[in-house]
Amino acid sequence: DGTVGANKSAIKIIGDHTDLYAQGYFAYDSKKSGGVTISHLRFGPDPIRKPYLIRKADYIACHRPSYIYKYDLLRGFKPGGIFLLNSPWRKEDLDKVLPAAMKRKLAALKAKFYIIDAFEIAKNIGLGGRINMIMQSAFFHLTHIIPDADAVKYLKDANEASYGRKGQNVVDMNNAAVDAGMTGIEEVEIPAEWEHATTGGSIARVARPDFVKNVCDVMNRQEGDDLPVSTFKGIEDGTFPSGTSQYERPSAAIMIPEWIPENCIGCNQCGVVCPHAAIRPFLVNEDEAANAPEGFIVKDFRGPVKGMKYRIVVDPEDCYGCGICANTCPAPKKALVMKPAETELPKQNLWDYAKSLPARPNPLGKKNLRSAMFEPTYFEFSGACAGCGETPYINMVTRLFGDRMMISNATGCSSIYGASAPSMPYTKNSKGQGPAWANSLFEDNAEYGLGMHLGEAKLRSRLTEKLEALLPAAEGDVKTAMEAWLAKKDIGEGTRDRADALDAALTAAVASHPEYQELLDLKDHFVKKSQWIFGGDGWAYDIGFGGLDQVLASGEDVNVLVLDTEVYSNTGGQSSKSTPAAAIAKFAASGKKTKKKDLGMIAVSYGYIYVAQIALGADMNQAFKAISEAEAYPGPSLIIAYAPCINHGLKAGMGKSSEEEKRAVECGYWCNWRYNPQLLEQGKNPFHLDSREPKGNFREYLMGEVRFASLAKLFPDKAEELFEKTERDAKQRRENYVRIQKSYDMELAEKK
Amino acid sequence: DGTVGANKSAIKIIGDHTDLYAQGYFAYDSKKSGGVTISHLRFGPDPIRKPYLIRKADYIACHRPSYIYKYDLLRGFKPGGIFLLNSPWRKEDLDKVLPAAMKRKLAALKAKFYIIDAFEIAKNIGLGGRINMIMQSAFFHLTHIIPDADAVKYLKDANEASYGRKGQNVVDMNNAAVDAGMTGIEEVEIPAEWEHATTGGSIARVARPDFVKNVCDVMNRQEGDDLPVSTFKGIEDGTFPSGTSQYERPSAAIMIPEWIPENCIGCNQCGVVCPHAAIRPFLVNEDEAANAPEGFIVKDFRGPVKGMKYRIVVDPEDCYGCGICANTCPAPKKALVMKPAETELPKQNLWDYAKSLPARPNPLGKKNLRSAMFEPTYFEFSGACAGCGETPYINMVTRLFGDRMMISNATGCSSIYGASAPSMPYTKNSKGQGPAWANSLFEDNAEYGLGMHLGEAKLRSRLTEKLEALLPAAEGDVKTAMEAWLAKKDIGEGTRDRADALDAALTAAVASHPEYQELLDLKDHFVKKSQWIFGGDGWAYDIGFGGLDQVLASGEDVNVLVLDTEVYSNTGGQSSKSTPAAAIAKFAASGKKTKKKDLGMIAVSYGYIYVAQIALGADMNQAFKAISEAEAYPGPSLIIAYAPCINHGLKAGMGKSSEEEKRAVECGYWCNWRYNPQLLEQGKNPFHLDSREPKGNFREYLMGEVRFASLAKLFPDKAEELFEKTERDAKQRRENYVRIQKSYDMELAEKK
Ligand SMILES: Cc1ncc(C[n+]2csc(CCOP(=O)(O)OP(=O)(O)O)c2C)c(N)n1
Ligand SMILES: Cc1ncc(C[n+]2csc(CCOP(=O)(O)OP(=O)(O)O)c2C)c(N)n1
Ligand code: SF4
Ligand code: SF4
Ligand code: SF4
Ligand code: SF4
Ligand code: SF4
Ligand code: SF4
Repeated sequence: DGTVGANKSAIKIIGDHTDLYAQGYFAYDSKKSGGVTISHLRFGPDPIRKPYLIRKADYIACHRPSYIYKYDLLRGFKPGGIFLLNSPWRKEDLDKVLPAAMKRKLAALKAKFYIIDAFEIAKNIGLGGRINMIMQSAFFHLTHIIPDADAVKYLKDANEASYGRKGQNVVDMNNAAVDAGMTGIEEVEIPAEWEHATTGGSIARVARPDFVKNVCDVMNRQEGDDLPVSTFKGIEDGTFPSGTSQYERPSAAIMIPEWIPENCIGCNQCGVVCPHAAIRPFLVNEDEAANAPEGFIVKDFRGPVKGMKYRIVVDPEDCYGCGICANTCPAPKKALVMKPAETELPKQNLWDYAKSLPARPNPLGKKNLRSAMFEPTYFEFSGACAGCGETPYINMVTRLFGDRMMISNATGCSSIYGASAPSMPYTKNSKGQGPAWANSLFEDNAEYGLGMHLGEAKLRSRLTEKLEALLPAAEGDVKTAMEAWLAKKDIGEGTRDRADALDAALTAAVASHPEYQELLDLKDHFVKKSQWIFGGDGWAYDIGFGGLDQVLASGEDVNVLVLDTEVYSNTGGQSSKSTPAAAIAKFAASGKKTKKKDLGMIAVSYGYIYVAQIALGADMNQAFKAISEAEAYPGPSLIIAYAPCINHGLKAGMGKSSEEEKRAVECGYWCNWRYNPQLLEQGKNPFHLDSREPKGNFREYLMGEVRFASLAKLFPDKAEELFEKTERDAKQRRENYVRIQKSYDMELAEKK
Repeated sequence: DGTVGANKSAIKIIGDHTDLYAQGYFAYDSKKSGGVTISHLRFGPDPIRKPYLIRKADYIACHRPSYIYKYDLLRGFKPGGIFLLNSPWRKEDLDKVLPAAMKRKLAALKAKFYIIDAFEIAKNIGLGGRINMIMQSAFFHLTHIIPDADAVKYLKDANEASYGRKGQNVVDMNNAAVDAGMTGIEEVEIPAEWEHATTGGSIARVARPDFVKNVCDVMNRQEGDDLPVSTFKGIEDGTFPSGTSQYERPSAAIMIPEWIPENCIGCNQCGVVCPHAAIRPFLVNEDEAANAPEGFIVKDFRGPVKGMKYRIVVDPEDCYGCGICANTCPAPKKALVMKPAETELPKQNLWDYAKSLPARPNPLGKKNLRSAMFEPTYFEFSGACAGCGETPYINMVTRLFGDRMMISNATGCSSIYGASAPSMPYTKNSKGQGPAWANSLFEDNAEYGLGMHLGEAKLRSRLTEKLEALLPAAEGDVKTAMEAWLAKKDIGEGTRDRADALDAALTAAVASHPEYQELLDLKDHFVKKSQWIFGGDGWAYDIGFGGLDQVLASGEDVNVLVLDTEVYSNTGGQSSKSTPAAAIAKFAASGKKTKKKDLGMIAVSYGYIYVAQIALGADMNQAFKAISEAEAYPGPSLIIAYAPCINHGLKAGMGKSSEEEKRAVECGYWCNWRYNPQLLEQGKNPFHLDSREPKGNFREYLMGEVRFASLAKLFPDKAEELFEKTERDAKQRRENYVRIQKSYDMELAEKK
């Protein structure tokens, strides 16, 4: 979250301006957000030769208030050391808020204890959640390594150097942060009675499964290396249970949406676009509504099932505060308003209540996007960046197929927020059904997913043989169930019902027909699985492309979802063959010279691959259709999903990432289309360009993203040419789609 | 050449029908043809535990007459052992023919010496050059391991099992071979005076360079492991000199073409299609014609240079006897007739004379295919299979760009016949100019070639900087040459002349302008190089595809030639994504189920890659145009060349491989087309389908190749469906091309 950069700059200042030697080690996990970073800094008059982390600290600062409950922050703290806490709490509340153990330790060590409300200060300055400059300045103030006046000067010089290019107001804000860091600190007198404190704050935790307590919590406390091997008995193969990240509750948001029932039109779009599945529509019955906690306001739901009540519920502790939901809400009068976390966090009980209600069948089924939102998601809660463009796609896919999905995931953001050990956001429903997820390598993901699929296919063909052998002698329910199963065994729709019916019939009959046991032994394979292969553009367009091509060409029934951020996002934005011309990216520091590769058209060239390009924010229904069609297609499918990313530098902020997708399509930067080979077999045009004729201003779109806009600043002489090329490339690409669609029309007309 | 199979079957017969234990080791080089196979067979009453090759042999057989001159055949021969020589020579000529050393050894060891004219026998039976059954039967007869009558029975049973499916006449021919092997042997009495023989046969060898004598000959004698490290002083990096395979002279042909001057129309097509560059047109002046050896008949040549004489010359020792040249010759009365080797081999002197004449500039230049044939080839002589469809393409490319080519070659047939150490068919002209060739791996070939290109580009940009710095002060010839060079430095056409002019001017001026030396130090880079990347379809469509895509996408000026045999030829015909549906191949034993991948259209999707499909036998001029355009295109180019292969099982024989290409195009199995992005820039249709509307019978075409035809025999129930699919696939593919071409026409018309 920027701590490393800030600490590096502190080291530089001390190294440059004093006679002290300096050393810095940084330890961090691989999470996309909400992870923990520990900076180990040493300064001293003699050369420092300590190739290990700090075990005895003079100065400890905690940048995230909630960490006082999660970590043993004062491990290795020296007597008389300085402890600075970023605290939203007032001095007088600390006795109630701080955990008892921390109070005892502070008192016993006779620590010098300071607090600063850095989030509040940053917000007032206009820095949003960026508190690093404040905390860095406070560090200088408290440690007295250099005189305050010098520190202020050096820090402001550094601001000029770092942010000068971004404009004077950015420099000014950061300078204000320097001043505030010096002055915003309050010293806390440690009451003598803390030495024997037995009461204090703690976070109320919902019941935690054993694995979460014994493994996840330990690893999250950064103590995983101490776990004995015996902890992993039974899962020596590396299998981790799913559904564990829901116990982490990052509470990362500063602003959280509040639902205004009277304005809501019940479209469920807020749920579709939320990158963190932290806002969802719920249906409750009258009893449930009546027994709900205070504030659980509901509306009548008009649907086929009578007496249901409808409500949008927010999960404040899992919300990242990006604001996409509120920005997207299409109600004539906004039905979502962003409110300070203070007022919304206390409403966590509403969410907890909604989640505690028994699962019930979705009264509307998955027939359209809106109704599908009443399905459970199988992806809660990922640690993707606030506003991430990738996760809403994953959410939607799991809502549709999560109870029978298998996922092979390329290394990339989606493998990190998708399963950064020990946290697993993929989860299961009340029956224990949910996605099976695995990540092999960056480069072999498609092959690995094909292997999953072929393994399952082999088992199912064994099952089919056995079942066919037993069918002639079968009678009654068993016969009916067997026939129904056989007739549609490879069809996803309704497979769960047919599988359940077969299971029930066999289970009822197995006592008198012991031969049915061998079918029941294979009952995990009654359901037609939905095989998915997820990955980023770095994987799909570049490093895994050879394998992806091989797998798509195989003709096997697998579904590929490419999360197209147009760069290698997870590693900081390297250029891929998906990066369009003119975009600045790593390895393309002066703007990429070649155009974006048309991966979709390459797949179309096979003729037997279902292919689609989608952009959720631009056309949710098209995205829904594409995903549904792709899964139903009995061969390989490829969906390329446009996903804005923090690496794009959206000037409007990541809270507008969904609208950015819309703008991208409107100006012709991105095209949504679908190619369905089955239509050709039916004598229809297989290619359908879903995006309308562009009308937005292409150049304006580019200028809204730092990756393009900065080219104009850095290489003003070359930028124009490259911008023109990008626009021309996009235009030609669209023309190509138009040409293809027309040429099919023409050909089909000729044939008639 | 089938020896291994035959010996395996001998081992099986002995193992199955006697109490003897048997062991077989086979040692062979990696050459495509004309290589050597040594079979080490042991039989005995006790279990054999000898994990090493045979050092003392009871029985030695030589299947290739010419090997008596090349190898020390009797190394490790036991006294009194049996030596069987496949001999085209009569008994009474042996004294003259056998090398003195061999005669001495036979006499000293009191060997039992037999000869058999297996080639003559095989030809009479109708087995062509296939002598293995004859030699196997002779082995049984001479060793008496089992009684002759039993051996005959077992061998004939084996014939029935192996060839039954191919029809009774094939079985009959092989049975005749068994009988002939028993009876066709003649014993040779070894004259006492041989013990002291000092005279005998030897092959006249043209002057051999040191490397050939000291390395190639030694390695070819299978004694390379004995070479001391010091032999490789100066080439420790593995560099091998080029132009060494021309000293091998396989003399593999049984029939060799004879030129009939009066019928010849001077089209030069025989030279174009010959897979071994063993037939070529030569232009000689009147003096040279007058001084030529007897039989060097010439015709008047009508061209811009007066007084030139024309002749087609055959290289009998390098000809493989495939007959393609004669089959292709379009003269109204055939100007090439296949004649027995006996009558043609003595005409080697005509070839040697033609080759000995001084190089002179091609009076017609490279403006068309016919005139380009007067350029030297830089690819002589490869050991590709007789009739190979790949090599004529390589020949043509080197004729056009050989003096400034760099080649990166994927592993595959083209790397084996292209440089099977120590033999290197790529060669240089009289000025020492010729292709630089390297093979890294199967999978990284495109990247490796790009690396070659980028290395060269870096050096040339350094050269350009230096030259630009010196230009302002330059005068006279140097100035002119520099300016001319700079103006067209990246243009292939005429680059040699501009480079020579620059070299000459600088060399003349360097004494007074020592600063020019730094340019002259870089003179290897004056010429614009022509970067090529060669490989098979296994490489391009499958294993190297990811890299190929990356390299093509890079936009760099490299030229890729895919030799498309539709299988992994070098390793025996495994199925690739280029294999069409219905073809039987390894890993697709019941016919491939998916259609052929359209690699060309994938490359077209980028819009900035020159792409072409060619089939030399169908349209030589189109192939010539495509190759020329591809090389001239200042970005990446991809040429996909259809190449029949022994793995296809052409029923008409490999002598018709060129006609097979024609038939493939005529029936619509293969389409020739070119996509030139530069045309679009000029407002013209970039896509041109060169093949006409199909007219031939598609099914007939399929049935002419064993890879398809055998499907009907092996899987009669499924074959029909797959054949229909292949035909439909090909049709749809063509329709796609038509649609694209039309849609561009339409779009361009709209724009006007
Ligand atoms: C062979 C290999 N190279 C590099 C890496 C490092 N790496 C991990 S994730 C990643 C980037 C993934 O980018 P992309 O596929 O675009 O997915 P995104 O992060 O954008 O979702 C890289 C380079 C790796 N794991 N394996
Ligand atoms: C990575 C790798 N896999 C396999 C091989 C073995 N191999 C060598 S050549 C070859 C086949 C080449 O086939 P293709 O590219 O079609 O060329 P062709 O021989 O048909 O000209 C294979 C599989 C190898 N050298 N490297
Ligand atoms: S603010 Fe962002 S994370 Fe929070 S509920 Fe809305 S969309 Fe989800
Ligand atoms: S997006 Fe707005 S209107 Fe639609 S369901 Fe959500 S709150 Fe209601
Ligand atoms: S794709 Fe971009 S926004 Fe999403 S988690 Fe990765 S880096 Fe963050
Ligand atoms: S027979 Fe074959 S190898 Fe010999 S010259 Fe003719 S084409 Fe070449
Ligand atoms: S192909 Fe025939 S006509 Fe043409 S040059 Fe050769 S021999 Fe002469
Ligand atoms: S491509 Fe086929 S014919 Fe040519 S050398 Fe290879 S195996 Fe022989």
